[in-house]
Amino acid sequence: MTEQCSKPLVIGLAGFGTVGGGLARLLEENADLIRQRTGRDMVVKKVLVRNAGKARSVALPRGAQLTTNPADLTDDPEIDVLVELMGGIEAAGSIIDRALDKGKHIVTANKALLAEKGIALLEKAGRLGRILRYEASVAGAIPVVAALKESLTGNRISTLMGILNGTSNYILSEMTSSGLDFNVALRQAQELGYAEADPTLDIDGHDAAHKLTILIQLAYGVAYPFTAMPVRGIRGLSSMDIRLAREFGYRIKLIAQARQCATQDGRAPRLEAGVFPALVHHTLLLARVGGVYNAVRVEGNAAGSLFFHGRGAGDLPTAGAVLADLVAVARDERPNNTGFVGDRLETAEVVPPAEWRSCYYVRLMVDDAPGVLRDLAGCMAEEGISMAQVIQKSDEEGHGVPLVFMTHETTEKAMSRALQHTLDRGMLREPAVYFRVLG
Amino acid sequence: MTEQCSKPLVIGLAGFGTVGGGLARLLEENADLIRQRTGRDMVVKKVLVRNAGKARSVALPRGAQLTTNPADLTDDPEIDVLVELMGGIEAAGSIIDRALDKGKHIVTANKALLAEKGIALLEKAGRLGRILRYEASVAGAIPVVAALKESLTGNRISTLMGILNGTSNYILSEMTSSGLDFNVALRQAQELGYAEADPTLDIDGHDAAHKLTILIQLAYGVAYPFTAMPVRGIRGLSSMDIRLAREFGYRIKLIAQARQCATQDGRAPRLEAGVFPALVHHTLLLARVGGVYNAVRVEGNAAGSLFFHGRGAGDLPTAGAVLADLVAVARDERPNNTGFVGDRLETAEVVPPAEWRSCYYVRLMVDDAPGVLRDLAGCMAEEGISMAQVIQKSDEEGHGVPLVFMTHETTEKAMSRALQHTLDRGMLREPAVYFRVLG
Repeated sequence: MTEQCSKPLVIGLAGFGTVGGGLARLLEENADLIRQRTGRDMVVKKVLVRNAGKARSVALPRGAQLTTNPADLTDDPEIDVLVELMGGIEAAGSIIDRALDKGKHIVTANKALLAEKGIALLEKAGRLGRILRYEASVAGAIPVVAALKESLTGNRISTLMGILNGTSNYILSEMTSSGLDFNVALRQAQELGYAEADPTLDIDGHDAAHKLTILIQLAYGVAYPFTAMPVRGIRGLSSMDIRLAREFGYRIKLIAQARQCATQDGRAPRLEAGVFPALVHHTLLLARVGGVYNAVRVEGNAAGSLFFHGRGAGDLPTAGAVLADLVAVARDERPNNTGFVGDRLETAEVVPPAEWRSCYYVRLMVDDAPGVLRDLAGCMAEEGISMAQVIQKSDEEGHGVPLVFMTHETTEKAMSRALQHTLDRGMLREPAVYFRVLG
Repeated sequence: MTEQCSKPLVIGLAGFGTVGGGLARLLEENADLIRQRTGRDMVVKKVLVRNAGKARSVALPRGAQLTTNPADLTDDPEIDVLVELMGGIEAAGSIIDRALDKGKHIVTANKALLAEKGIALLEKAGRLGRILRYEASVAGAIPVVAALKESLTGNRISTLMGILNGTSNYILSEMTSSGLDFNVALRQAQELGYAEADPTLDIDGHDAAHKLTILIQLAYGVAYPFTAMPVRGIRGLSSMDIRLAREFGYRIKLIAQARQCATQDGRAPRLEAGVFPALVHHTLLLARVGGVYNAVRVEGNAAGSLFFHGRGAGDLPTAGAVLADLVAVARDERPNNTGFVGDRLETAEVVPPAEWRSCYYVRLMVDDAPGVLRDLAGCMAEEGISMAQVIQKSDEEGHGVPLVFMTHETTEKAMSRALQHTLDRGMLREPAVYFRVLG
């Protein structure tokens, strides 16, 4: 790297929780390395917190002043870059907006903000020639933002899929390896600090959906309307399905996936995108992602299949991604915030989930009576669905038996209609359970 | 990305083999995407080949002129960037050197050149403010060069390890899954085009050593003297060891590894680095790398453990990495060739292999006689080596039996001395076989 600016990079840090503490620690521990890689020191001048009087377990960065006034950061002409680690959408968005107006570069880990209001901020940063980086917003330590923006630019990306929520993956891993029920595994995750007291964002799939929205922008150069994304989480997933999926050679994982469909010339990309629990064959690396780890798989027309695996959260893994973004700012890199010229992203065309094609795993609770399988096969055939494998258990306790099968590829629409037929014919003792099988 | 230069990027392509053909195809197929990502077209003006009359299976890039004279590329003022895909060291090195003198940027996939003569070229490019990129030189489609140079800069890296040679990994995978002998698997790899007629560079570890040398430069900012690197390949590896390793729960993989040892203040990093077959526990993702795939694992003080997996070779995967480098050139990025300020890399301090600490797998062919295990344990104990697990087979055919054991951590020096004792005492029917066990 050629030599350049040697004055310290002055940071305003908004938010001082776990990740902020991790960043303070890394700035100290890796100070020599930062100098070797940038030719500069990094100094945190001010730290914005909500409550200045609160006791903190982590020491503030050396020499930093605490403040509760956002303007102390945004309007300080000495501050080069705002690091936003507050989370939430409104307050974080307005401080970033103001900091851009004041000429600051931005580094943020805020996936909710970027997914729901990111387009306007990216456009603004692009217009003003400011750097807005967000490596830490998706998959923690896995450098997938940079990979899509810089390294995979030789590729047309057909499919993106990932395990993007560590909490859900931990719960599913424990349910699989220790046979725990969902509620027990969730409680265990909460006790270990892997799940929040209110776990909604994580287990209902919204966190993964935020991250997928960001990855879609990077891979396809389009905005995906977040509110249009179909999201299904893992709440209440039955350990019976985890066991039965294993019998077919699969693990159940919470998958975030985007696929590009054929697009007419000159139109915005048509995308299938959503978050859902899916069956992943045990031979795939994605099936091997355990505990709180994250992973991303990218299929490109040049690279073929690429797989990235690492820690998706935690103080140091996330702070390390923030620090890498700060290194890029200190190196005075050219702003490349979206990976696309102009930073104005048009809106993707959304393929409604009813049209997606996929193989399915289906579990029906039925009476252990003659003809059930024949009736079921009839319901499926009416919708053009062909069954690939079937497991029928015998009824040991008179509660009905699980009739489990895997289908060949079909649409969600055909599948939900076929299941409606089974319901209409009174075949079901409980609502049907079904999951996509990852292609 | 902000708008900038919109004139086409003019390429001089040196070498038109598999990867060159792949690049020509991608430049055509992904042309619209390249424009979206850079605001420019890419045009190959000239292609340098050794024999202009040779029949080619792949079409030249549209409008490109064929030449056999390097100066037609290096001295053409319209050419912005030289893409070097010739391979080899001398001719490739001199054309790059000349192109730098003439103000061109460089993109190369040449690992041998970079590992053996790269330091001077990187220094020169840095001095002249030219971009010299080489993503395709290591691990094909896996963007590990960019990851180390850009994305993991928030980390102090303790360990780098990888499966960097697809040919060797294919042979080991076939030996493991189909029980083939080494020579049969090698022949099969040659028939499938995965191994060269002269497979030396691949199976004897030199190719992996070239790639490791490049990764060391990127991770630690030092030059590792290539000729000092201990390299052991997989030639003649016995399928018996693959079977026995499995009994302990391990796969044998050809591993390239670098670890940083404690360094005195102000001194260059002390590195253990080398290429060797090693036992990898089946639960690690590295053990799951099959066929011609490559993988890299990086341990950092922020990220923890990161794992990357993808195609390590092939026309399109490698060409995709070259194209990503061209996108960076087209975006007029600031040169960041080494990831370190100044681009002058001092030489690493080499830790001699005798001092490396590791657990070992050892197989001795011994007589099936009383007291052998006691004598062996004595030889190990004399060198302070403690044994962790032992398998002793019974002698069914009177050829001697394998006595196989895993040790706790020890040095290579102690291990080779202990094995010398077993030889001195006449215990061995064949030379001992031993491998490191990956930590």
